[in-house]
Amino acid sequence: MAAVTIWNEYRHEREDDEVTAVYPDGIHATLADALADEHTVRTATLEEPDHGLSDDVLQSTDVLVWWGHEAHDEVDDEIVDRVQEGVLEGMGLIALHSSHYAKIFKRLMGTSCSLQYREDGGTERLWVVDPGHRIADGLEESIELPESEMYGEPFDVPEPDRLVFVSWFEGGEVFRSGCCYRRGSGRIFYFRPGHETYPIYENEEIRRVLRNAVAWASPTDGSPRTFGQRE
Amino acid sequence: MAAVTIWNEYRHEREDDEVTAVYPDGIHATLADALADEHTVRTATLEEPDHGLSDDVLQSTDVLVWWGHEAHDEVDDEIVDRVQEGVLEGMGLIALHSSHYAKIFKRLMGTSCSLQYREDGGTERLWVVDPGHRIADGLEESIELPESEMYGEPFDVPEPDRLVFVSWFEGGEVFRSGCCYRRGSGRIFYFRPGHETYPIYENEEIRRVLRNAVAWASPTDGSPRTFGQRE
Amino acid sequence: MAAVTIWNEYRHEREDDEVTAVYPDGIHATLADALADEHTVRTATLEEPDHGLSDDVLQSTDVLVWWGHEAHDEVDDEIVDRVQEGVLEGMGLIALHSSHYAKIFKRLMGTSCSLQYREDGGTERLWVVDPGHRIADGLEESIELPESEMYGEPFDVPEPDRLVFVSWFEGGEVFRSGCCYRRGSGRIFYFRPGHETYPIYENEEIRRVLRNAVAWASPTDGSPRTFGQRE
Amino acid sequence: MAAVTIWNEYRHEREDDEVTAVYPDGIHATLADALADEHTVRTATLEEPDHGLSDDVLQSTDVLVWWGHEAHDEVDDEIVDRVQEGVLEGMGLIALHSSHYAKIFKRLMGTSCSLQYREDGGTERLWVVDPGHRIADGLEESIELPESEMYGEPFDVPEPDRLVFVSWFEGGEVFRSGCCYRRGSGRIFYFRPGHETYPIYENEEIRRVLRNAVAWASPTDGSPRTFGQRE
Repeated sequence: MAAVTIWNEYRHEREDDEVTAVYPDGIHATLADALADEHTVRTATLEEPDHGLSDDVLQSTDVLVWWGHEAHDEVDDEIVDRVQEGVLEGMGLIALHSSHYAKIFKRLMGTSCSLQYREDGGTERLWVVDPGHRIADGLEESIELPESEMYGEPFDVPEPDRLVFVSWFEGGEVFRSGCCYRRGSGRIFYFRPGHETYPIYENEEIRRVLRNAVAWASPTDGSPRTFGQRE
Repeated sequence: MAAVTIWNEYRHEREDDEVTAVYPDGIHATLADALADEHTVRTATLEEPDHGLSDDVLQSTDVLVWWGHEAHDEVDDEIVDRVQEGVLEGMGLIALHSSHYAKIFKRLMGTSCSLQYREDGGTERLWVVDPGHRIADGLEESIELPESEMYGEPFDVPEPDRLVFVSWFEGGEVFRSGCCYRRGSGRIFYFRPGHETYPIYENEEIRRVLRNAVAWASPTDGSPRTFGQRE
Repeated sequence: MAAVTIWNEYRHEREDDEVTAVYPDGIHATLADALADEHTVRTATLEEPDHGLSDDVLQSTDVLVWWGHEAHDEVDDEIVDRVQEGVLEGMGLIALHSSHYAKIFKRLMGTSCSLQYREDGGTERLWVVDPGHRIADGLEESIELPESEMYGEPFDVPEPDRLVFVSWFEGGEVFRSGCCYRRGSGRIFYFRPGHETYPIYENEEIRRVLRNAVAWASPTDGSPRTFGQRE
Repeated sequence: MAAVTIWNEYRHEREDDEVTAVYPDGIHATLADALADEHTVRTATLEEPDHGLSDDVLQSTDVLVWWGHEAHDEVDDEIVDRVQEGVLEGMGLIALHSSHYAKIFKRLMGTSCSLQYREDGGTERLWVVDPGHRIADGLEESIELPESEMYGEPFDVPEPDRLVFVSWFEGGEVFRSGCCYRRGSGRIFYFRPGHETYPIYENEEIRRVLRNAVAWASPTDGSPRTFGQRE
């Protein structure tokens, strides 16, 4: 059981009726519901002081889940610094969907994190390419999402340490949809599904992936990281 | 310009009229034709003494291209030892299509190299996921093959050092179709396309990939690998 | 808590008085003692039927610990096949010291696994280069072994997925002493320390590494690995 | 033959007599001399407009070599953005010694890039751990530097794609001294040696590594990286 903080931009849900209909209490509430069976969950949003990510919150967070889209630029650089430091010290980070362009994800990757996309609502099928991975526990060989936004390659990220999912899209594209990284002592998982107008976080298999990913990203004790001049 | 040896099992082409029609002089002849513009090419086949892979041949080979399918078990283990040794010393190896089950490929990977497949002749589209890679030189964003055998995940190989291509299949599957490895001083490239009854090695873009892959897999000088007890 | 089987060649301890003095009940007994606090432990040795590694034993083993040196060639290839299959299905494998040349380790790596060595009893210091790794839990920044056999680079193994330890040797060499791999669904850890005439498996920090490594290498549930022709 | 731009902070050499004695025309002049036999070389320094790194300069640079130490913070963020963009588009980057803390290197790594150090002038021996790598062409099994500053692990960088050198230090430490990365289409090499008061860039073996690294980091043509919304 990990102590999870779910961070959500929380804009689309309050500004766009179509999104409100899908996620009436915000995407963070649906994500919290998905995780609560196996983990302890708090939420935080952009409008809160420090975006809800005070030092106290971060220091008591095992895994931070991040969803952002239209307001990436409004996230304060000092908070990004703080989250990066937390990850390097061992906090897990799960970046969802359009968070490929979140400041914190780009900061940790060092690349543009660009990709191709098309909002067409076609079918997506996520294939498990690493069946023995902790994040694939209990899954079938693939997950089918009847309506999804397309994300296509090339996805400008560093080569993943482990690639867990590759997506097939009805329109003819593929995408590396589940990518694992280590940075410092922290584990990072990028997971593609999750557009704001498709009820993807209600899907039981996707919820299972989210719970597994949190379990995988939880820190272990490690060894002290003592830097600087040695005597 | 690399010194290439193309190894072909050369069975289907002599036993099956449908294959003879596509590759009348053997798959190796078509592959040789694809490479000859940029590289020096020899061929070798299963029925020759030492399968055509004498010490002399291997020692003067920069890159070995391998195509096998129905007769993997007939390849002599001593020749496999010799090829493995050559790769570890720096010779490049390009394993094509059904050669995922070749003894030499399984030997170098250490895994079962199993996968899913279906001979259905549907469309395959190979996406370039690593656009800056030498093997992708001069390609567009994807290569489309109108008729292809399907290979599907999970593909039981070690995580590639670099993943260059991911295939999309009309029937709903994906596959890591271009995988780069280093073992010892040698570079290894697995490339999926190439079924014996589809004229895939006539495709200009596929031929370009083959030429690029040979250039990439060619050995550099390196440093001496001197092992054993130190004084 | 993992179900561990410790496999030991068990020759030096019965043939050489100097080794008997250090490991009177065999290296496997000392390793079992090191692991028993946190894991369930069985042992198996070369002379037993099936080398003690029947299907029943392997199927009820989460993690297999391997120590071999002078009798690698006496290990039956069918048992090696069986262990490899077990690892690909998810069983963890910890290869110790001179087991870099064990058939099962070479099989899974695909390389020669050669290295340089010198039996000189000088000091070795193992530095933690990946402080956040599960295997480094509870360790200081380095482990010092006052008397050790030297293993030197180049070590002909595939680039590790994660490198946890690098050794410094008094005589001037370095070595990648703690290397993590995934093959199929199984986790593999190579750990260098452990010569038969130095009481290295009595060292408390080394014992901690062994317990951590077993915990890390234990399988998770994963997703089914169903291969073959799809309908 | 690559078009190289050598960037040097150029402070120590003008402020500190001890450094002036070692590098009278600046470290960049010595580096230029080391590379000029095999490559076309220009230099750029911090005090120049745009730090000497205008768009024109970067667009005609195959490989950028970077040396900085005391003035990392004075490098303009816009120039860092520009260099990062260049690397992602294919320009090579070689970060030397104390440039582990350069803004551009930290930006591309996403980690703190911290390490341990001690200025003690002890012996360093760089072991080649990847003898088949292009960067090791023509080297012996190790390079010995009689006087060197110590850098010790843990080095907080992402796991290298290829680790080419590991350093042994007389004082008891080890360090991953030659680390290869790919980010976007660009190749990055971190190379540890090079303190300002030891004449390390006069060492013939070190100069050979620098020439090799430039050859390795030079861009290939690749495939177009076209991102954004697909029709």
